[in-house]
Amino acid sequence: MIFIKNAWYVAAESHELTGNLLGRTICGDPIVVFRDSNGAPAALEDRCCHRHLPLSLGKRTGDKIQCGYHGLEFDKTGTCVSVPGQKRVPPNASVRPYPIVERYRYIWIWPGDPDKADPSTIPDYHWNDDPNWISNSGYFHVQGNHQLLVDNLLDLSHVQFVHATTLGADGVTDAPLHTYRDADQVRIERWIMDKKPPAMFATAGNFLGNVDRWQLISWTAPTHVVIDAGCANAGTGAKDGNRNEGITVYSNHTITPETNDSCHYFWHHARNYRLDDTELTKFLANAAQTAFGEDVDILAAQQRNIDSAGRHWEGIDINADAGVLQARRVVTKMLEAET
Amino acid sequence: MIFIKNAWYVAAESHELTGNLLGRTICGDPIVVFRDSNGAPAALEDRCCHRHLPLSLGKRTGDKIQCGYHGLEFDKTGTCVSVPGQKRVPPNASVRPYPIVERYRYIWIWPGDPDKADPSTIPDYHWNDDPNWISNSGYFHVQGNHQLLVDNLLDLSHVQFVHATTLGADGVTDAPLHTYRDADQVRIERWIMDKKPPAMFATAGNFLGNVDRWQLISWTAPTHVVIDAGCANAGTGAKDGNRNEGITVYSNHTITPETNDSCHYFWHHARNYRLDDTELTKFLANAAQTAFGEDVDILAAQQRNIDSAGRHWEGIDINADAGVLQARRVVTKMLEAET
Amino acid sequence: MIFIKNAWYVAAESHELTGNLLGRTICGDPIVVFRDSNGAPAALEDRCCHRHLPLSLGKRTGDKIQCGYHGLEFDKTGTCVSVPGQKRVPPNASVRPYPIVERYRYIWIWPGDPDKADPSTIPDYHWNDDPNWISNSGYFHVQGNHQLLVDNLLDLSHVQFVHATTLGADGVTDAPLHTYRDADQVRIERWIMDKKPPAMFATAGNFLGNVDRWQLISWTAPTHVVIDAGCANAGTGAKDGNRNEGITVYSNHTITPETNDSCHYFWHHARNYRLDDTELTKFLANAAQTAFGEDVDILAAQQRNIDSAGRHWEGIDINADAGVLQARRVVTKMLEAET
Repeated sequence: MIFIKNAWYVAAESHELTGNLLGRTICGDPIVVFRDSNGAPAALEDRCCHRHLPLSLGKRTGDKIQCGYHGLEFDKTGTCVSVPGQKRVPPNASVRPYPIVERYRYIWIWPGDPDKADPSTIPDYHWNDDPNWISNSGYFHVQGNHQLLVDNLLDLSHVQFVHATTLGADGVTDAPLHTYRDADQVRIERWIMDKKPPAMFATAGNFLGNVDRWQLISWTAPTHVVIDAGCANAGTGAKDGNRNEGITVYSNHTITPETNDSCHYFWHHARNYRLDDTELTKFLANAAQTAFGEDVDILAAQQRNIDSAGRHWEGIDINADAGVLQARRVVTKMLEAET
Repeated sequence: MIFIKNAWYVAAESHELTGNLLGRTICGDPIVVFRDSNGAPAALEDRCCHRHLPLSLGKRTGDKIQCGYHGLEFDKTGTCVSVPGQKRVPPNASVRPYPIVERYRYIWIWPGDPDKADPSTIPDYHWNDDPNWISNSGYFHVQGNHQLLVDNLLDLSHVQFVHATTLGADGVTDAPLHTYRDADQVRIERWIMDKKPPAMFATAGNFLGNVDRWQLISWTAPTHVVIDAGCANAGTGAKDGNRNEGITVYSNHTITPETNDSCHYFWHHARNYRLDDTELTKFLANAAQTAFGEDVDILAAQQRNIDSAGRHWEGIDINADAGVLQARRVVTKMLEAET
Repeated sequence: MIFIKNAWYVAAESHELTGNLLGRTICGDPIVVFRDSNGAPAALEDRCCHRHLPLSLGKRTGDKIQCGYHGLEFDKTGTCVSVPGQKRVPPNASVRPYPIVERYRYIWIWPGDPDKADPSTIPDYHWNDDPNWISNSGYFHVQGNHQLLVDNLLDLSHVQFVHATTLGADGVTDAPLHTYRDADQVRIERWIMDKKPPAMFATAGNFLGNVDRWQLISWTAPTHVVIDAGCANAGTGAKDGNRNEGITVYSNHTITPETNDSCHYFWHHARNYRLDDTELTKFLANAAQTAFGEDVDILAAQQRNIDSAGRHWEGIDINADAGVLQARRVVTKMLEAET
């Protein structure tokens, strides 16, 4: 399995961790994620070093995890601190711990070299817990490689075809696309000027006429995509910075590899207008859940076709792939650097 | 996967294609089959040359297929004629087209070298749309290699055991068997003289006493089997050509490889008597559906046992396999010629 | 697949064989088990030597099995004695027979070299049909390697964690453990003196105070485990041989490999007190079924984690594994001797 390991990935949404032991496979590793007695998150290899049972089938006792098979206990660093029936713990008895940080309502994990884990490099998703924004979030388990989902988000020309009845609207693919790259980031910008608003925005923003619409995608390696998507009344200067007559949604996505052909898909939507409108919140949550579910079906069908084609198959690229290709180049370099 | 590719296979029954895009795997290839705006059938590789999505998840626009992911459009020859967001189509943008012909209420496809596809070699199944005959048809998805199903049909001694309560009757296996081979055809003939009629024929023909019964099998490589099965009052000269006191059913079968261990099974039954008797038609349709369903279960169990045995396993042959062995020899030669 | 083949394994409980043909995979071999017209058990390869169909899909005719596909008949020795449509049976037409013995309400089979099959080496499970004992029995299909289940039974320290609410009680793992080995047997003994009785024993024995409790495990290679577990009023000399003020349950287990990652698990419980108490019988049967079901879940989770870890993974051992390690050494030697 091929993954960039030296990277922060989302292991779970904060609300998924209460008193439970959450077992989840990340970059091919079985991992148990939990909170200690103070609520701080911890992550250990989800496989007892004695007889392989997933620790997530055991229980938490104070700040320790007790294996559900023979009762070995592990502290938060993965060190075995107690073996029933004997006073001495074998010196090599331990499971692997993973660096973990809670931020932006996400539990972030670092599956690679722990010495390289620097929390200051966690990508910015502040919209998800910023009091000036209101956000909806959700999770999908995807039966496709994580890169396919990154590709999907970096080429929004698919919106017109996959999400025709939800996010989509005509005219997207005709708008010019600009791609910028620096270091481990790629930005892809598209402005669709003076067109009808798509269904979701029309409802949310009560637009009567045409709009100037923007899709500003920012990808941070390896799998983090922030999309500033919005529209304003046509001709009111949105492109030049005046968005007072428009609405913005941050459609943010972060993807965690599970296996070679599956991944975890975390998304949230955040807006900074009509914060108290719970009806609108519900409407946008449903719209996002429906639209992203359409992508999930696409990705699974893609993966099946890739698997059946075998390695010899090569596809073609189109202009809309400019951002995808830039990002893939960054990923290839990072993979080479790791191996 | 090992298939004879230079051959006509049934991709679908005619009635399966209305306005839909039918995705079906044939000889290991994912293929989308559809009708153009004039109702003429067409078949393309079911995998967009851009990002692998099955084209069968897209939609038909006029005579073109539009991919459901990024909107690339392909004409009936598989040429990509439009890419959203750009004026120029990449010169190598295309998917593979397959020769296709509609005949005898079947859609025939040629998965091999298109230059060798000669519609005059489509095997004769005229009974299926001949106004002098009335026919029932059906489809089974079989979890076994196509050759196992051909074997099944070329050794009807199984009828006595697998179809004891439907098609079967005692005495079949004791009757002498004659096998004839020429080029890519094998004929297997069995006459069962002066015996009780099997249940289905007894009901259909109202026979009061014994019958002379025939099973005349004609196999055309690689997977096409026509069976002229009938019976007449015993001693009325059916064997010498007088079938006026009997009834005939053409029990026809054509099999399309899907993968190494699965296939598509198309069958029809045709008779040339009591054409207006809809009760009889219903009775025969049910009888066939039930009986062939018994074969489908057998084939899946066979395949599982073959898989678990591995390659080292070798079985024995019996006299009743004469036709099977002739046909397998033809298939081996054809496979060698292709590779 | 790696199995000790020269060994007696339980193919079925006696009551499973009535007039049926029971198909079961044992040590990777598909096997059909049945009774002849006199009720004597027989076992044959479950794969017709002609076209691979499982013979268990056929039927018994007298003392023979008739294949359900083309009607070949096999006697109890596996010799094909009849082929429909021909007088002569091909000389190599046969399926493999397996040595088989019915004893202790079990059908025992020998998947290895038949010349080495000596019924006197069938392990002692007389409690299961001894009139002085009353027993409950049951079967589980386990999605884990048979050795994992043997390990489980040879380290009862798991009882305290896996079966906390059924068989378990505190204090088990603190009690000293003694391990004895001779030839292909390992005995593991633990006495837990002057403690509260576990739930199941408390109910069964109406103990008012503390008990002296014993777990005497006897393993016979490769997969047979007899456990004499009981308790008596504390201080009444149970350890010295006086068990008059106690109760005993033989908790017996015998495991049959199916594939590398699955096995058949046969267990029975036998007691020699309150033989007529049907309520108690029911209570103990339910308790055993529930408790062993907990093990089955553990084993499947273990196997999944072993599979995902790959071969490079190595665990640690603890003191409680003394018996497990002794037994594994015996198994390794036996496997080496066979190959």
